[in-house]
Amino acid sequence: MKKFYIAKSRRLRSTPFTSRIENHGVTAYTTYNHMLLPASFGNLEKEYFHLKEHVQVWDVAAERQVQIAGKDSTKLVQLMTCRNLSKAKVGRCYYAPIIDEQGGMLNDPVALKLAEDKWWLSLADSDIGLYAKGIASGLSLQVEVSEPDVNIMAVQGPKSFKLMEKVLGKKITELKFFGFDYYTFKGNKFLIARSGWSKQGGYEVYVENRKAGQMLYDELFSAGKEFNVEPGCPNLIERIESALLSAGNDFDSGDNPYECGFDKYIDTNSDINYLGKKALIKISKEGINKKLMGVLIDMDKIEVTESVPLYENKNIVGDLRSAAYSPNLKKVVGIAMIKKEYWDKKTPIELKIGDKKSKGTICDLPIV
Amino acid sequence: MKKFYIAKSRRLRSTPFTSRIENHGVTAYTTYNHMLLPASFGNLEKEYFHLKEHVQVWDVAAERQVQIAGKDSTKLVQLMTCRNLSKAKVGRCYYAPIIDEQGGMLNDPVALKLAEDKWWLSLADSDIGLYAKGIASGLSLQVEVSEPDVNIMAVQGPKSFKLMEKVLGKKITELKFFGFDYYTFKGNKFLIARSGWSKQGGYEVYVENRKAGQMLYDELFSAGKEFNVEPGCPNLIERIESALLSAGNDFDSGDNPYECGFDKYIDTNSDINYLGKKALIKISKEGINKKLMGVLIDMDKIEVTESVPLYENKNIVGDLRSAAYSPNLKKVVGIAMIKKEYWDKKTPIELKIGDKKSKGTICDLPIV
Repeated sequence: MKKFYIAKSRRLRSTPFTSRIENHGVTAYTTYNHMLLPASFGNLEKEYFHLKEHVQVWDVAAERQVQIAGKDSTKLVQLMTCRNLSKAKVGRCYYAPIIDEQGGMLNDPVALKLAEDKWWLSLADSDIGLYAKGIASGLSLQVEVSEPDVNIMAVQGPKSFKLMEKVLGKKITELKFFGFDYYTFKGNKFLIARSGWSKQGGYEVYVENRKAGQMLYDELFSAGKEFNVEPGCPNLIERIESALLSAGNDFDSGDNPYECGFDKYIDTNSDINYLGKKALIKISKEGINKKLMGVLIDMDKIEVTESVPLYENKNIVGDLRSAAYSPNLKKVVGIAMIKKEYWDKKTPIELKIGDKKSKGTICDLPIV
Repeated sequence: MKKFYIAKSRRLRSTPFTSRIENHGVTAYTTYNHMLLPASFGNLEKEYFHLKEHVQVWDVAAERQVQIAGKDSTKLVQLMTCRNLSKAKVGRCYYAPIIDEQGGMLNDPVALKLAEDKWWLSLADSDIGLYAKGIASGLSLQVEVSEPDVNIMAVQGPKSFKLMEKVLGKKITELKFFGFDYYTFKGNKFLIARSGWSKQGGYEVYVENRKAGQMLYDELFSAGKEFNVEPGCPNLIERIESALLSAGNDFDSGDNPYECGFDKYIDTNSDINYLGKKALIKISKEGINKKLMGVLIDMDKIEVTESVPLYENKNIVGDLRSAAYSPNLKKVVGIAMIKKEYWDKKTPIELKIGDKKSKGTICDLPIV
């Protein structure tokens, strides 16, 4: 595959950690919420094995926050998501699919309830702040929608717990999955959640003071030597195996949350009010005809840059949306939107790239 | 400056022309509306001189369209922009700043009135479709908001007129600036506007049929040999000299349209209804304290990746937002947000990069 440079500009915003990760050897970026998101430090497979064994510090500042504050904030957050947030508690994170009136997926943020009248939506890649502003203006809601200068640094991997304990103290180990609380490092307070874009365990530090965040970043590397700490980033192989979906890659507004497997985050029965509710009720009655599943393909490399059709002879089985070679499974692993008639996983599939055909199978998600 | 690769994925969408521009030697991409936008073919300065003398074909499919159709479409478009569109005519393009309720700039699309009940907003880089969906849901408007598969190919440069006449016939030369109409090539109809992201003249072809668009793309290159046609892309040097502002680079939601010099596109007097009107009336009464201006700096190269402060001794004069070395002026040209006390252009300015200080001056926009 030919490689191309990224043309940097103010519009593709740098983060407080950009100069650090560039010193640490980042080689490739993607962009995400109009910001640079590191995509590789030169060897995806090496980074994959390291992440599963040790601990990595990630610059994921591109997971921007939409802050929704004010009297009507909970009403507005609920209007955007099909997840029932009526019993949401301060100090907890909620994975909350955001949909439009047709039930199409717009984003899948983690919603943090900061106070009874203040939320952060920790975004995937789309301008949900504009959606929120539009709804708020249309309904004359008493809210303030903004993007605060919050920059997330993630600490991921099995040794993240030991490293964070060493730097922040014993108390951090008591934090439960998808909980968040405030912790102090050298006199600076940080909101830290037990969350992150890997299944290897870890934390996300919501940095509100850039200088303090940079100090903490540096401390994690010096204190982390004994844990074999390395810089890293969300790992394509690991996230596909673990079925951590990527908005825009694995789904878009042409897909509804049922098709993405988000059934447990959809409430069509209670009396909560959200914009796509009517559409989702209709879909839940009619059923769906495609859904996201895993695939395993006999190939030793791949680069997916657009939907790739999957075939059974001349019939289209579905389309492949993300894929990477797994050095663990010795196959290409992928996430694909599969037609209903193939959900039984019994049909062998074929993928054509140029003249080359490769064989594969359909499997459940997560793959590993 | 260190260079980094772009990590491609389905989320950073390819265009119908991507394989062609990659064969033509594109070297760098930026991303724009979740899509690849070519940024260079290897020599920005050579491309600059070529654009000003000959003709280029550009893949600007990343200028996505938000289609707003239905009974309330004109009402919704007007709600988003401070430009008075009450007398807008079918077949005309309108540069239309889009603002939020606080008067902050969200985008600066070209709005095309396709019919009395159908508009396209040809976007800069932000998800205005989500803003439109939010407002429409909030106000229960009778509109359908969508992103049709329209991919723009631009033909730019002084020889674009001769090339387009050769390929599409004499009638295209009668199209007036910011007008659009339909033209036929080999049985396929194309919406073509006399517009584009350079001041060198030319057209934008709104491709609705991918295969037909690729045929036209190829024809422009074979018919264009006699006009010295080359592949190209919006040129950083040319667009700064010409003051073609770039949303996200030169302004963002922290700036209002007065500060961007968009006064002639702001209507605060008539009875039209748009969301930021109250805010803009207040701003127009109070006046502004910063505005976009040009700068000329004695340097022979620069890469701006975030706001760069400009100084007069220890005082901050403003911040530089876009800049490039102009081989024409033998200086760095830039667009900067300048504080009111320096609008008289008399204060020499200084820019510090690392230990190096460079001197410059403030000037009007456009620079050339």
